[in-house]
Formats: sequence, structure tokens, C-alpha cells
Amino acid sequence: MAKKITSRKENYSQWYIDIVQNAGLAENSAVRGCMVIKPYGYAIWEKMRDALDKKFKDTGHTNAYFPIFIPKSFFSKEASHVEGFAKECAIVTHYRLKNDPNGNGVIVDEDSKLEEELIVRPTSETIIWSTYKNWIQSYRDLPLLINQWANVVRWEMRTRLFLRTAEFLWQEGHTAHETREEAIEETVKMMNVYADFAQDWMAIPVLKGVKSESERFAGAEETYCIEAMMQDGKALQAGTSHFLAQNFAKAFDVQYLNKENKLEYVWATSWGVSTRLIGALIMTHSDDNGLVLPPALAPIQVVIVPIFRKAEQKEALMEYVNSIYSELKKAGVTVKLDDSEHFSPGYKFAEYEMQGVPLRIAVGPRDMENNAVEMARRDTLTKEIISRENLTEKVLALMVDIQRNLLENASKMRDGMSKKVDTWNEFKEAIDNEGGFLYAHWDGTTETEGKIKEETKATIRLIPLDAPEEEGKCVYSGKPSKRRVVFAKAY
Amino acid sequence: MAKKITSRKENYSQWYIDIVQNAGLAENSAVRGCMVIKPYGYAIWEKMRDALDKKFKDTGHTNAYFPIFIPKSFFSKEASHVEGFAKECAIVTHYRLKNDPNGNGVIVDEDSKLEEELIVRPTSETIIWSTYKNWIQSYRDLPLLINQWANVVRWEMRTRLFLRTAEFLWQEGHTAHETREEAIEETVKMMNVYADFAQDWMAIPVLKGVKSESERFAGAEETYCIEAMMQDGKALQAGTSHFLAQNFAKAFDVQYLNKENKLEYVWATSWGVSTRLIGALIMTHSDDNGLVLPPALAPIQVVIVPIFRKAEQKEALMEYVNSIYSELKKAGVTVKLDDSEHFSPGYKFAEYEMQGVPLRIAVGPRDMENNAVEMARRDTLTKEIISRENLTEKVLALMVDIQRNLLENASKMRDGMSKKVDTWNEFKEAIDNEGGFLYAHWDGTTETEGKIKEETKATIRLIPLDAPEEEGKCVYSGKPSKRRVVFAKAY
Repeated sequence: MAKKITSRKENYSQWYIDIVQNAGLAENSAVRGCMVIKPYGYAIWEKMRDALDKKFKDTGHTNAYFPIFIPKSFFSKEASHVEGFAKECAIVTHYRLKNDPNGNGVIVDEDSKLEEELIVRPTSETIIWSTYKNWIQSYRDLPLLINQWANVVRWEMRTRLFLRTAEFLWQEGHTAHETREEAIEETVKMMNVYADFAQDWMAIPVLKGVKSESERFAGAEETYCIEAMMQDGKALQAGTSHFLAQNFAKAFDVQYLNKENKLEYVWATSWGVSTRLIGALIMTHSDDNGLVLPPALAPIQVVIVPIFRKAEQKEALMEYVNSIYSELKKAGVTVKLDDSEHFSPGYKFAEYEMQGVPLRIAVGPRDMENNAVEMARRDTLTKEIISRENLTEKVLALMVDIQRNLLENASKMRDGMSKKVDTWNEFKEAIDNEGGFLYAHWDGTTETEGKIKEETKATIRLIPLDAPEEEGKCVYSGKPSKRRVVFAKAY
Repeated sequence: MAKKITSRKENYSQWYIDIVQNAGLAENSAVRGCMVIKPYGYAIWEKMRDALDKKFKDTGHTNAYFPIFIPKSFFSKEASHVEGFAKECAIVTHYRLKNDPNGNGVIVDEDSKLEEELIVRPTSETIIWSTYKNWIQSYRDLPLLINQWANVVRWEMRTRLFLRTAEFLWQEGHTAHETREEAIEETVKMMNVYADFAQDWMAIPVLKGVKSESERFAGAEETYCIEAMMQDGKALQAGTSHFLAQNFAKAFDVQYLNKENKLEYVWATSWGVSTRLIGALIMTHSDDNGLVLPPALAPIQVVIVPIFRKAEQKEALMEYVNSIYSELKKAGVTVKLDDSEHFSPGYKFAEYEMQGVPLRIAVGPRDMENNAVEMARRDTLTKEIISRENLTEKVLALMVDIQRNLLENASKMRDGMSKKVDTWNEFKEAIDNEGGFLYAHWDGTTETEGKIKEETKATIRLIPLDAPEEEGKCVYSGKPSKRRVVFAKAY
């Protein structure tokens, strides 16, 4: 029997949970707010990680690893950072357990109290900049272009698998530069790396821009970001790239001798994406039958299911099926051959549909007789009998076409949910009904932004980089505005 | 100026530290016992990880990710596990900081005390088996072959970069099986995967065997291991693979319906290697000039250094040098071209020697005129002028030869430090002087093992799998023994 999932129309949140669980992506663990990333979900993350890692290396970055623990006092060194960050976090206070004298397992040994508490990193700017102090002396040591793949912990009260969890996996780039201009250039470059990755690998079109002051990263002078639109009209921040100016260099006293032999503070950036991207992937492409994956990130791109009733039928089929399998594998396609006898073909079809395998090839005795196969596309849910001739070329072409089609559909979906609004009534109506990206004039004040959020839960997702200058009036206050910003409710 | 390192003869421990620091592999961090793995050290780890990951996948395993935190009570569920393990560990007791009312940064918010403390994983058997309970119902769910790449924390009092640190990176495989036999087969298989990796990638020959009872993993019925010999006569445990019998299945009540429709407890294994391997790599091959790396794991396999005095000399050289660079790159060699003008060729030579780059190609104007290059091998410290003709083929052949030579040298070193000892005097003298692997008879009792350790610091590294039966007398107690075991002092 196929697993049941709630339809999107009925309950979008439950649909999401059903997909995550039934496709075997992740589940809640015994530890509050921490998830278990299951093999199939982790395989998607590995594909993302490898693709991003290559992009980071191609742009001159190297990986390193910094401690998971940060001394509590480090957070106080950069004033706005501590305000914006370190409050909800996991705090290590002791380092030893002992046997309970009453015989109830183990208890904390109070003699092992740490002099200074350690924080499980929520992000690593502080520990990394305390390290960079020793690595940077001269302009010859710059730029320093380092990335870290790591787990981080933020003690979130309301968690959702992938979208918001206490522990999550991510990468965090931390770079150091000679000049403001070079650091800004790096910040923008990495935003573009993220945008290209979203588009080319995840088949998700994104908006690029900068955050308003109130949405900025704690300690940043400017936060660049990419924002994606989900099927339910809510936005999802898919990646951020921060220009940190000299804030962390000053907090940790990181200076370098410039070419004129003068000491100057170093300029910094940081940028990151996380396992949250898997949430974006699900909510962009999937449907009421289950997960839909772009071929570029699918752990299984093609599944082959031989259809047989008796053992001798299977035997006859396998040579034919194996030749297809080998051919595809040789061509670099990630292909799975499922000839297990535990489950019926129908059950298998439903399972692979649930798992979002882009292409299914089914082969029964009659297909073999006709030198053909049945090919089913996950994105369009269409089936077709096609000839065995040049099958590999056809599969390769379909991979490209499915990837293209998913991006096209996601773009249409996003564009259909993007509109200009000019009055407060329009704004409220749109937010209350279909949601989406609302391009509206804003007077530029944190006060107005706060009131809009209070009344509608919509926030400024970004100020688009390419927004044309346009005279207008703030949708809320009526005060003059020079360009539209993008509002939405967000995950 | 080249960095100075202490000679091995003078002070082996200091030599090790000098190599780690001067080759840019790792350093101590602001957090007690936690290291920063620097880009060059991390690049070696990435190569190890990729090679191992492929071996795991080729043997049917998939990756997943489990929470970093483990509820304290989990450790008490498997009796011997809590005895052997969870005592020295990082304990999370609170989840919120607040501003100090006295204005001194942030303090722990006492209102955020956790009901149950969380332990930062020292190893993940408990959290994983609590999860497997939901994943395993029937024999159809078995075997379950999962690996995790993760950071773990053990609150070590005396730490050494890579060899013993509070936090380290590792992989931990956790598999579940229908039968005892199948689980043992898996345990042995993974020990062999580790041994092959050590030999073929790290160029380190290892002994294979099982641990004595007192050295066994807490919760295991049998611990298989690989042991390597370092240059200073001390052994290093390079990987372990545990047969856990049904201990964790019973502790977490993981049962499956077998083919006869009867409930049975699941059989388990776990196996791991860590960043400690980098310590083994250093102490096996390196010399008084710095790090020596096998080509299979070298982040830079070949460095090309053009030698020029004036700008026009450089210009003339670069075409020649670039053609070599492109050719090598195309052939799949990881090659770096260092034409920077900040540093002299002599400085560069010393740096790349320190970093253990297997092959250095230097090209000056005269080499170019002669259609030649100067080639220097890091392993033998020999230099040779060779013709530009078929250079890539020569380089590829040298990579193979250097890898072979390092393994051969390490094997000779190890064999030279392995011997049979039959009397207690011989034993003590060998341990006090040259160290090494001592093959000696042992009466099989934990008591004798303990006394030997007390008197000499030597432990039983392993009971070799292929040890022939041989009548003898225990080197310590004189009681009868059926075969020799391997003693050594160890890291």
C-alpha cells in the first residue's frame, strides 16, 4: 500500500511534514528540536554540499575547521552581535558525569563546573576572528578565503524539520580583506554563487538584494540575501552573505601592515547556507503525490523496475534490463535497478514517486518483445512507451528537460505570485489571501516596517539590487519613497 | 628564512608539534583541548574522507546524520557502555544567556535550566539505537548499513593535536543485522576496509587483530582493530571495528520479525576512524625537514617553481612553465604553480619541503634552454635534471613510485621494530629502549595484563588474527600460553 499524504490544499503544513516523513528525508529525534537526517535526505544534502563546495573552491576558497565551542565572553566582544544572537543557545557548564550514589544511573559531577561556560556555536564569527588575529599580520596574508562545513545550534522554541531546527548543518564562509571595496565585492560574489546554485542545481529562481536594517545579521553593515517563493505564497530566505565591515576585526583586534607599512583593521565578510535549503527544495517542486526532485540533486536520477510474475520471466528480463542499467551507469546517470521481490511493481511505482525520482523506466515481457520500455516522468506525471534504440541519449536529454521544466514552472509560480501593490488595502488583502512577493513603496523607516509586520506579519524580504528608481508613496505611511521593496510573509 | 623544526633525535614530541605547526596543519584554539584544523591539514582530511567514503559506499553503506546531543539517561541504558565511556564529556545544562544586570556582558539565565542534561556525543551508539528502534520492524529492514561523518567530544585532560583532542572529527558506522554471523562478517569487513585504506592511501602497513578484554570498546563483545608503528617505537591505534552483539538492541529494545515471524533482537556493529589518522600519517613518514606525504593524500602533489631574477625572465619562462602545468593538470595531477614574487625560490623550496609536497619541479632560464626541468623528490630528497619530453608520464610514474617507496620504508621501519621476546628481562629492556611491537606469550588474564602495564606502560595492542598456534610460557607469569600477542607502548 502506498503511504498517504495530505493534499496541499487541505493543509500545507501537514503536507510538508508528510513529504519529509514519507519520502524518508528526516524525522524528529529524542532530543528536543534536533532532527535525524535520514539516508535519503542526507544524500540530497551531500549533492548540494559537493556542488557548493566546488563553487567555493573554484572561487578561491579553502575549507578549515574551527571548534564547536565558543567561550561565553567572546560573544560580548562585538556589541551588536551579542544583542542579535547568542541568547538562545546550548550552554556547556560541566565536563564530567559520575555514578549517582542512589543508584539511578549517572548525574552531573558538580566538581567539574567550568570556570567559563562554553557556548555551542550558533555561528562562528567570534571564534574565527579570535583565530585570524594570529593568522593575519601583513597584506601578504590577505585575502584569507576560508569556508567551514559544520553543525550549529540555535535553541529555537518552535521547530520544523529542515526549516528551523535547534541543530542544523551548514557552511559558513569567513573571509578577510585589505579594503572595504574588496570585501563588498566578495559579499556580492558569494550572493551570486548562491543564486546560481539555487537556479542551476535546485531549479529555484531567486530574488537578490539587501536586507533592511532590522533584518540585518547581528554585526553586519550590510546583509545580502537570496529569497525564494514557496507554493503557499510564503517567502523563504535561502542564503545570506554579510559585509561585516571592520566590526569583528576591531572586536578581536585584527590588524595588518599594509603596503605602506601602516597598521589597518581588516575588512570581513561571512556567508552561509544550510540544510534549510532542503525545505526550499521540497516546497518549490513537490506535489500531492510526493517529493519532486531536480535531476541535478536527485540521489537516484533514474529507477528501473522490471515487471515479472514468475521466476523464469524475471530471468528472461534481466539481461535486457541489465544492459539498460549498465549503459546508463556508464553514461554517468545515477541509476537504481530495483528487482527486489518483496514488493509489487505498483508499490514500487508509488514509492519512487513519493521519493521524487525524476525518471522511472518500467520493463515488462511485452516491452522487451517490442524492444521498448515504459518511461514515466515525475515532473509531468506522464508515461510513454519508447524504443530501446538510443535510450541513453533519450534519458540524458530528458534529464536536461526535466531540470529546465522544473525551473520554468517554479519561475511561473513565483512570477504569478509577485505583484506591485500601491495601497494599504491592496497590500493587506494580498497578504491575507494569496501571499506572494509584494513590490511596494516604503518610507525607509524601521518604525513603518515594524508596524507593517505587526499588522500583517509581512516583512521586508529584501531591497532588490536591480530595482529601478521610481517616485512613489509608502504603502503604509504615504510618505515619499524612491523605489519599491519586496514584502512577504516568510518561513 | 625557513622555519626551524626540532630534530626527532633531540625531542620527538617537540618535533611532532613543530611539524604540525610549521606545515600549517592545525593549532590549539582558545577553547581548552579543541583544535583548529587549518586549511592545509583540513585538505588532507578531505582526501582521507573522500577515499574512505567511497569505500563505505562501495560496500553498501549510506550516510545519515544524528543529533549532536544525547539525553543523559541514554548512557545508563547499556551498563558497560556508561562504565567505559560517558564520564568525561561536555554537559549542556542551560539554553539561554541574558545580559548581566551588572553590565558585565552576558551570563547564564538560571531560568533556562534543562529538565534533563544533554551530553555532547562522545560516540553515537545510544542515540542511533534509540532511533533504529523505529526503523527496524522486519527482516526486510535489515541489514541497515549507515555511516555518519561528525564531530565528537571527549573531555580529555591531556591533549595533543590530532592524536588526542577534546573535539575531533570522525566517521562512525552503525549497522544492524539479522544474525550474529552476519554482524561479525561486517565487523571484519570494515576492519579490512580500514587496513586497505591505511596501506593503499596512507602508505602505512598495519597489524590486524582483536583487543584483549580490558582494551575492548565499552559495550562490545569483540573489538577488531588496526595498529600502526610510529618512528619512535610507539604504537598507534588507527581504527577500530566493534562487534556489539545484541547489547544495544537489548538496551533500546530493537527487535525484528524474522522470516519465521518470530521476534528477535538485532545484531550490531560500529566502527570508526578519526582525524587521529593525520597524526599517524605525520609520525610514519615525516623527517627532520618537515612533513612527508604520500601522493595519494597530498593536497598538492606537484609544485612548479619558476626561477627568475627580472620581469622579462619571468615572462619568457611562463609559457614553458604553463605548458607543463596544463599538461599535468589535464592528466589529473594536483599541481600548484607558484610564480609569486613575494618570496625567493629558496624560501619556496623550504616551504614546500616543510609541507611535504611529494614532487617539486623547478625551472630556470637554463633549464628551459635545455628543454629540461629540475625534479626534486620529497621522500628521498634527491634532485635530478630531466628532459621535458614525456614529462607527464614521468611525473605519473614518480607518483606511483613515491607512494610505493613510502609504504616500503614504513614496512621496513615497522618490521625492524617488531620482535619476539621470550623473557621478562628482554621485554623490559626492549620497552625501555627501542620500543616497537613485542610479540610475546601471555597467560590470557586481565591481571597479568594489568601488571605488565603498571610496570612498563606497555599494553596489549592486539591479538593478531593470523597468529599461529604455538606452545609457550607467559613472558610475565610463566604460565602456559597458546600464542603470542602484540605488546607496545602506545599513543
